[in-house]
Amino acid sequence: MSRAFDQLKPHLKRAMALNTALVLFEWDDATQAPEQAGALTGDVIGILSGEYFQAVNNEEVARLAEACSQETDLTESEAAQVKELLREIEKLSKIPQEEYQAFAKLVSESTRVWEAAKKANDFSKFAPVLKQVIDWQKKFAGYRAKPGQKKYDVMLEDYEPGFSMEKLDEFFAMVRREIAPLFRQVMESGVEIEDGFLSGDFDDETQEKIGRFIAEYVGFDFQKGVMAVSAHPFTTNLHNKDVRITTHYTDRLDSSLFSIIHETGHALYEFGIRDDLTQTMAGQGASMGMHESQSRFFENIVGRSAGFWKPVYGKLQEAFPENLGQVSLEEFVRAVNKASAGLIRTEADELSYSLHVLVRYELEKELIEGDLQVENLPEAWADKYEEYLGIRPENVREGVLQDIHWSQGSFGYFPSYALGSAFSAQLYYHMKKEMDFEELLEEGKLSVIREYLREHVHQYGKIKDSRQILKDTTGEDFKPEYYVRYLKEKYQKLYQLPQ
Amino acid sequence: MSRAFDQLKPHLKRAMALNTALVLFEWDDATQAPEQAGALTGDVIGILSGEYFQAVNNEEVARLAEACSQETDLTESEAAQVKELLREIEKLSKIPQEEYQAFAKLVSESTRVWEAAKKANDFSKFAPVLKQVIDWQKKFAGYRAKPGQKKYDVMLEDYEPGFSMEKLDEFFAMVRREIAPLFRQVMESGVEIEDGFLSGDFDDETQEKIGRFIAEYVGFDFQKGVMAVSAHPFTTNLHNKDVRITTHYTDRLDSSLFSIIHETGHALYEFGIRDDLTQTMAGQGASMGMHESQSRFFENIVGRSAGFWKPVYGKLQEAFPENLGQVSLEEFVRAVNKASAGLIRTEADELSYSLHVLVRYELEKELIEGDLQVENLPEAWADKYEEYLGIRPENVREGVLQDIHWSQGSFGYFPSYALGSAFSAQLYYHMKKEMDFEELLEEGKLSVIREYLREHVHQYGKIKDSRQILKDTTGEDFKPEYYVRYLKEKYQKLYQLPQ
Repeated sequence: MSRAFDQLKPHLKRAMALNTALVLFEWDDATQAPEQAGALTGDVIGILSGEYFQAVNNEEVARLAEACSQETDLTESEAAQVKELLREIEKLSKIPQEEYQAFAKLVSESTRVWEAAKKANDFSKFAPVLKQVIDWQKKFAGYRAKPGQKKYDVMLEDYEPGFSMEKLDEFFAMVRREIAPLFRQVMESGVEIEDGFLSGDFDDETQEKIGRFIAEYVGFDFQKGVMAVSAHPFTTNLHNKDVRITTHYTDRLDSSLFSIIHETGHALYEFGIRDDLTQTMAGQGASMGMHESQSRFFENIVGRSAGFWKPVYGKLQEAFPENLGQVSLEEFVRAVNKASAGLIRTEADELSYSLHVLVRYELEKELIEGDLQVENLPEAWADKYEEYLGIRPENVREGVLQDIHWSQGSFGYFPSYALGSAFSAQLYYHMKKEMDFEELLEEGKLSVIREYLREHVHQYGKIKDSRQILKDTTGEDFKPEYYVRYLKEKYQKLYQLPQ
Repeated sequence: MSRAFDQLKPHLKRAMALNTALVLFEWDDATQAPEQAGALTGDVIGILSGEYFQAVNNEEVARLAEACSQETDLTESEAAQVKELLREIEKLSKIPQEEYQAFAKLVSESTRVWEAAKKANDFSKFAPVLKQVIDWQKKFAGYRAKPGQKKYDVMLEDYEPGFSMEKLDEFFAMVRREIAPLFRQVMESGVEIEDGFLSGDFDDETQEKIGRFIAEYVGFDFQKGVMAVSAHPFTTNLHNKDVRITTHYTDRLDSSLFSIIHETGHALYEFGIRDDLTQTMAGQGASMGMHESQSRFFENIVGRSAGFWKPVYGKLQEAFPENLGQVSLEEFVRAVNKASAGLIRTEADELSYSLHVLVRYELEKELIEGDLQVENLPEAWADKYEEYLGIRPENVREGVLQDIHWSQGSFGYFPSYALGSAFSAQLYYHMKKEMDFEELLEEGKLSVIREYLREHVHQYGKIKDSRQILKDTTGEDFKPEYYVRYLKEKYQKLYQLPQ
């Protein structure tokens, strides 16, 4: 008698193939598809998505998945795949297919509406459709909630298993209590960091050339990867031998440089997934937050350090002699760490970033669990920015309409950005005990750092969740104190604050 | 009661979506996929191909297709779709699936073997697998042959419906009788055309810039299309709003320029397919030959004429002042029409091109229908090159191993290249009666020419076959005399031969 998993395998492979095709269409759309292709290619994507839905969500697969969960001889990889499949089935099967499709349609509509509203700087255009999106998502969360489970917790669980409101409230309380005052201190310190030389007319070709060099230096493998240009930088992958990042070239040199290092961090995760996991449902990162921890680890902890730039800053100066020729390594590193009170999350520095997320977390909670009305969002948004960042958006384009996430129905996503930073800090303090981190950076031995993360984080895919990874690697459950400590040590020094 | 076609539609849409995904994977592989992605992405492609096979080749679809062929209220587009579906079913259903898959596997193997053999310049490495490929293809043709139908005719019909050996023998007899002697006359004319200025160190960026300009000038719509780089130039499309061409940049300026014009000719065909045909099985060009007629029409008849370059040659000179600054329009046009006895088909000039195809047609016939043994191919190849082109390959790399086609099992494909040229000449002489062709070129009014072809050729997709298109457009069945006349008029003048 054949094992249930062996019978399940062709179904999983079919789902994987369809999913890979969808990933490629998404990549293509963001990087090169012609402007007018959208509608017709959309039909294709719609059909393939439907095929994927049916490949995963049918009676035979459900029966086999159930049977597999009873099997005792599954490999680690197989068990993880079954777990992910059951999670997916749970999610899909509780939502009637008509409602799921109606929602998918609404979302593609609402994203367009959001774009137009942002362009017109007019929240009232977006409000009605956002209200519908929220109503649907609350309805879906209601279908899926376990007895007694809150709706927002259902949403959070999709992005970061193991992190409910209870845990996040604790985390964000610490952000509010420790980081918001630190940020105020920094703003009031009177220290002015010069970063004018980061702005200028940097030609795209040279930016790309040095960008590729830096990506490779950090560990991007161009034999197994592609780098391209898109409006918003992102990372995707077909499998662990085909990982793709994008960047964009602007008049801020640090914008492309650090987006490349950030995406390379994501890419290293995907390159590092084990061969028996890639191309399976368990072959992605453990969670959004753990993925983000790797990108932020390389972007901020590694990439914004003096040690990192020591071996390669000369190369950057050579690429842009007019802009950086007279700028010392120390001045450059200070500039790329400058904190400022900005309105836009994606342009925020490392210190204020978590405050941007704090605003969103508190608003999402109130929208889903509290009684904040959509109409009152712009005001609530502005109030919180004023409270935490000391700055008030003068228009909704730079306020509540800046992010795409809500228009796509992604509630519960934002917290994982801040969690990622916190995870990376916890990993960092542990790694410093295991290796001479600073020396490795200064000697350009990034492979030791990469290897460590591959061994402890990347290889496992979804075999472990983020808390398990932290426990197994650092010996401790998630501990946000490391994040606070990291930011304090770094910014107190940079801004000459009393310690 | 719903029409059979309406029941068939979801099946056709599914097949179309899977096929579009396969097209995108192919594009991606040729233009940007990382080197090491091949094996894992190959799994995905294998699964999606299997899905496509099953989407088209199953009992319900066969039953519905049969029912549709009895329906009387089909639109023109629907009828064409049913015809193509029945053709596809006929092809797939007669070949046992295990054999089809075994052959697909052999072909992916044999392409690699061919590549290695070509690199090693060693035919004996390729011969055994080529023999297997031929045996399979003969077997498949045997399964599919109608009573009394020859195997090579089955193969030819796949690429050019309506053109059997009987018709092609006639055509190639004329090539041998008229063009081979003309080519000899040209070679012996003593006229030396200077084309040294076409070789040089042309930087890729400038080549790309002028290439995009020329593509757009010919009619490529970048709102609905993409241009990229690949080892061998090609055209593909997802649908009529997403058409993609590639080129390559070498040290021959004419190489990228005319490959871009050639591929733009293919692209115009795809842009011109009617909206009710695109994304259906009848939504591609009528045939390989008719497709090639459009690329060659723009590359040769339009693109290598003095009239075409008159409005834009100055732009080309500006792009490469050092190379072309002192070269007159007349000298440039003479150079890009220079005939020479070369060994490589893809580098052949317009005149000798048909002789390269003649060699391959005669050899294929002997391999499939005659008693030519694979072991004797290199010798037979060399003999024919000596006979028709007066030049003998000194190694197999530049001889029988130069083309990928046979390794892929594509027998019957080559003739369509020469047919394409012949179709384009027939269309050309007819169009000259309907419009002042020369004046349109000189005034840069290419849209009139494009529109004519869109109206008479492109829009129909597979509604008409190539002979029907020629009849409806020119009032005559295929007449190869126009091709001979075109080459005679052009080359007798260029090489100052007695007329």
